[in-house]
Amino acid sequence: MTFALASRTRRMNPSAIRDILKVTERPGILSMAGGLPAPEAFPVEAIRRGCDRVLGTQGPAALQYATSEGLPGLREWVAQHLSRPGWQIDPSHVLITTGSQQGLDLLGKVLLDPGAQVLVEQPTYLGALQAFTPYEPDVMAWASDEDGPLPEALAGDPGPAVAYLIPNFQNPGGQCLGELRRMALAQSLRRGHTLLIEDDPYGALWYDTPPPAPLASRAPQQVVYLGSFSKVLSPGLRVGYMVMPSGEGDSARALRSKLLQAKQACDLHTPGLNQRLILDLLQGDFNLDAHLCAVRERYRIQRDVMAHALATCLPHGCRWRVPPGGMFFWVEAPEHVDTLARLPQAVEAGVAYVPGAPFFSSVDAARQNALRLSFVTLAPAQIHEAVARLAPCLV
Amino acid sequence: MTFALASRTRRMNPSAIRDILKVTERPGILSMAGGLPAPEAFPVEAIRRGCDRVLGTQGPAALQYATSEGLPGLREWVAQHLSRPGWQIDPSHVLITTGSQQGLDLLGKVLLDPGAQVLVEQPTYLGALQAFTPYEPDVMAWASDEDGPLPEALAGDPGPAVAYLIPNFQNPGGQCLGELRRMALAQSLRRGHTLLIEDDPYGALWYDTPPPAPLASRAPQQVVYLGSFSKVLSPGLRVGYMVMPSGEGDSARALRSKLLQAKQACDLHTPGLNQRLILDLLQGDFNLDAHLCAVRERYRIQRDVMAHALATCLPHGCRWRVPPGGMFFWVEAPEHVDTLARLPQAVEAGVAYVPGAPFFSSVDAARQNALRLSFVTLAPAQIHEAVARLAPCLV
Repeated sequence: MTFALASRTRRMNPSAIRDILKVTERPGILSMAGGLPAPEAFPVEAIRRGCDRVLGTQGPAALQYATSEGLPGLREWVAQHLSRPGWQIDPSHVLITTGSQQGLDLLGKVLLDPGAQVLVEQPTYLGALQAFTPYEPDVMAWASDEDGPLPEALAGDPGPAVAYLIPNFQNPGGQCLGELRRMALAQSLRRGHTLLIEDDPYGALWYDTPPPAPLASRAPQQVVYLGSFSKVLSPGLRVGYMVMPSGEGDSARALRSKLLQAKQACDLHTPGLNQRLILDLLQGDFNLDAHLCAVRERYRIQRDVMAHALATCLPHGCRWRVPPGGMFFWVEAPEHVDTLARLPQAVEAGVAYVPGAPFFSSVDAARQNALRLSFVTLAPAQIHEAVARLAPCLV
Repeated sequence: MTFALASRTRRMNPSAIRDILKVTERPGILSMAGGLPAPEAFPVEAIRRGCDRVLGTQGPAALQYATSEGLPGLREWVAQHLSRPGWQIDPSHVLITTGSQQGLDLLGKVLLDPGAQVLVEQPTYLGALQAFTPYEPDVMAWASDEDGPLPEALAGDPGPAVAYLIPNFQNPGGQCLGELRRMALAQSLRRGHTLLIEDDPYGALWYDTPPPAPLASRAPQQVVYLGSFSKVLSPGLRVGYMVMPSGEGDSARALRSKLLQAKQACDLHTPGLNQRLILDLLQGDFNLDAHLCAVRERYRIQRDVMAHALATCLPHGCRWRVPPGGMFFWVEAPEHVDTLARLPQAVEAGVAYVPGAPFFSSVDAARQNALRLSFVTLAPAQIHEAVARLAPCLV
């Protein structure tokens, strides 16, 4: 018995990171490989009380089928929470998604023909590459300089169909796009036909100063904004959202309508209990601002400890920047160090990281000497030891 | 500003039912249009206690990122629950999905090239058509007789790539595929190269006798089985599952591997809290068998009341069969009655149904004179009145 798989599956490959993470789950390993937020930061008790309250007061409704767009109150909260001068969000333009990962899949389905040009940063979020790939686009490196991706790359007629950007504390790079580059990119977007996907899971995780205003607030008709409660409340609840482009032209309306239809075909709707629970927390006595302050303070300390450990321990020729937010340090080892090849040595030494190569859109572009380190999963006391174990592997 | 949408979106059209349901939500309308299980049948208190227990004992783990395959214990439960002689399910072949709707999308993505032949019953589940359509297959009517879809349609070389079937208490038709036809279909499947998608959301909702063994148990290498907790526990939790084809050949392994990758790209994983909650119910003091007995008894009474009301009230020339399970009566009015055109008259009379045409894969094949009536959402006392209001609209 043989089945024919769809030809698009040839481009779908297992996540290298996934396989790596399995290796690193051995006991005794100090892992900086994961992309997981610190579970100690989850508001477990508030969520427990919230579940009890939601099921006690809205039980059957929380367990019934619900609308594909998402819970009206949650869509309103998102619209209010993000709206700012120049970006007044209509709640009907907010689509609740099953994590922001689903937003990437829906956008791929609705926007990408085979061969469509998609610009991505180098390196970029691996999950975005995995979401887009089955739709067989031409994923291309977004030309960039020290300040980030270049606005000129959005020019051309028609220009790239889609550009994908994580402006705040990027995964894996850690950098935050500055005000001037945001202004320039927004201007280019307004002139062209490219739709920008602005993926912002980390915006709330700033440790020095808050990030500049989103691209979506500068070019709301040209940007889809993806947000998530994963890093803020809990990733396991799988609740994210998409602010679809505004505009009342035919193509903006068609885009919004097709995204909703795609959402409906994918999973009918995001679980109602989870949406109601999050709305209950946001509207109840749970103090999101105080919670975020505590999370930021926790992560800031971990980041500072890792910055100090890297500066103290790493061998000559390693380069990195201290990320102003997010969860990751991106380290470039000396050119001759192949971080994928060195991983077994690191695991042997009791430490784990993610090699940099999978974060690039093509093997050619990949930096074999880069690696990603998460600073949020190890306790401060463990971070120094982890980096000390890592150092000899990068010589 | 105009965006180019992917050409596949041309085939994605809004759900006719969705728009119809909006009209029928007016106060005072006795609606038999919905596909929703009765909320009175949800075990709200058990779920409330389960949530509290899960968050109390597994809090951070229930809220953290989780594996794309699904919770190991839940995969094992599914494997044990479904296994029977001839079908010993390996838990590693079970994939937990965000509702079984997601299973349809994943299968479309992994199996369907543009132009691939997909056989579907006439009528069939609208959500399956919506899930498959973006992958641009040729959806074709599965030739059938009184006993259901014909095994001969699976012959040919290569034959259809995929065949889609709801064997138990079909939506919308209500029928249950008999033992002999199942045997014949399984035999054809074993001889050919068609993968059967066996969608079974309603199997537990039998009112006379349990349905025959699944097709998957008769041809486990040729069938993907989709199951769901939606009709059994709660649809709003969005937890379903897929039993992938067994077999250790290259193509079976590749299929399972690509399905997992597709799942990961779609939403990373199904919410962990929801999976743990369901497993807690299944393994704890909640009695699933007793719960299902109660649900069946409730629905059986409603079905019998509707059967009596239809026999008493509907005009001459209307035809239907009493469904042996599930949630729906499928009624064929006299040929000249266009049920879509008559819907406004029905709503005016204070009653709603879903016209039959959208359940067909092509406009040509559609029975304009058919309609679907749900018997589970109205109380027995209301069912007679609803059917009485409907009757004059079908003359």
